[in-house]
Amino acid sequence: MASNSCGTSRIAGCQFTLFPMSDKFVDIILGALEKVDTSKVWKNTDDVSTCVRGKIVHVFDVTEALFLHAAKTGEHVAISGTFSIGCPGDTDADSYMDESDTPLNIETSGEITQEAGCKFSLYPMGREDYMDTIYTQIDLSKHRNVEVNAAHYATRLDGDVKDIFSALQQSFDSVQKKVSHVTMTFTMSANSPSNKF
Amino acid sequence: MASNSCGTSRIAGCQFTLFPMSDKFVDIILGALEKVDTSKVWKNTDDVSTCVRGKIVHVFDVTEALFLHAAKTGEHVAISGTFSIGCPGDTDADSYMDESDTPLNIETSGEITQEAGCKFSLYPMGREDYMDTIYTQIDLSKHRNVEVNAAHYATRLDGDVKDIFSALQQSFDSVQKKVSHVTMTFTMSANSPSNKF
Repeated sequence: MASNSCGTSRIAGCQFTLFPMSDKFVDIILGALEKVDTSKVWKNTDDVSTCVRGKIVHVFDVTEALFLHAAKTGEHVAISGTFSIGCPGDTDADSYMDESDTPLNIETSGEITQEAGCKFSLYPMGREDYMDTIYTQIDLSKHRNVEVNAAHYATRLDGDVKDIFSALQQSFDSVQKKVSHVTMTFTMSANSPSNKF
Repeated sequence: MASNSCGTSRIAGCQFTLFPMSDKFVDIILGALEKVDTSKVWKNTDDVSTCVRGKIVHVFDVTEALFLHAAKTGEHVAISGTFSIGCPGDTDADSYMDESDTPLNIETSGEITQEAGCKFSLYPMGREDYMDTIYTQIDLSKHRNVEVNAAHYATRLDGDVKDIFSALQQSFDSVQKKVSHVTMTFTMSANSPSNKF
């Protein structure tokens, strides 16, 4: 893949929204934000979603930590978003690529045990052989510490939130090494009453 | 694009989740479902998301109607999901392609006036020229009855929910005529207190 507007850096990003299904949604979101160190990522929020950008390790670290701290309240909380890397023209905030690789929230996240269900889809862009890349990756997921099932348009992962994020990050990371522009959508749900719909 | 497992039909689908930010989230979701006629789409729901599949017109009609009826409650409600068509191997429930083209919920949806903000991204798969397709489509959006702005990894649309869904459907429909496998992610938010995050 080639693009004249393609940046030289490999800045990654995640555009996501945290959804607490609770009257206290503002407090839950602000409470989670207070507990998460976002200093190694560029961050922007509006009324629809939040975007964090930087090194892959920090983008996943921050997204995971925000979800964990929100879910820790015991309320039914979900998160939905899209990870992206190599989007042509995405060079803004390249200075965040100078941060060290040490994740800032791994310790506090490590203290939280939380089960969740997740559906994710990988989209390697600009490649005619993209389905092979997807199938190879979905197969790899089976070796990880999560339950993997097929779903329409997606792969379902069940397990501990940290194991799910670890599988997501490994999938994203291994594909982006082979394909310049990759996006990965995901929706994760915790503390859901069963048969909610 | 070619795939041996590619279906011959053009069944579309949407994998989405409705997120009422309210203690009454179960009632809001069930209430919306009661008011929406889903008989022209295949439907499956679990604790993470709902999937509807059928003709493009009905997939959009049902998704829009569910969001409108949930937002009508006045609560802060969001929806996030992925529209998809031409996914290789996606032939299940082809019988729904025999339904007539008349949307079942257009009248009741028409009675609801609701402003919202939306971010969406188009992913034409398996094509090296995918960025041109995306840029052309984003340019087209400007001619519709919604405010269009650029966002990271996405295009932002603001306006009436029905106008937003109309723009989404037109974008999706025009791209899928040129590209076999297309996905389109979206997150829409209504009745949000400003600066919620």
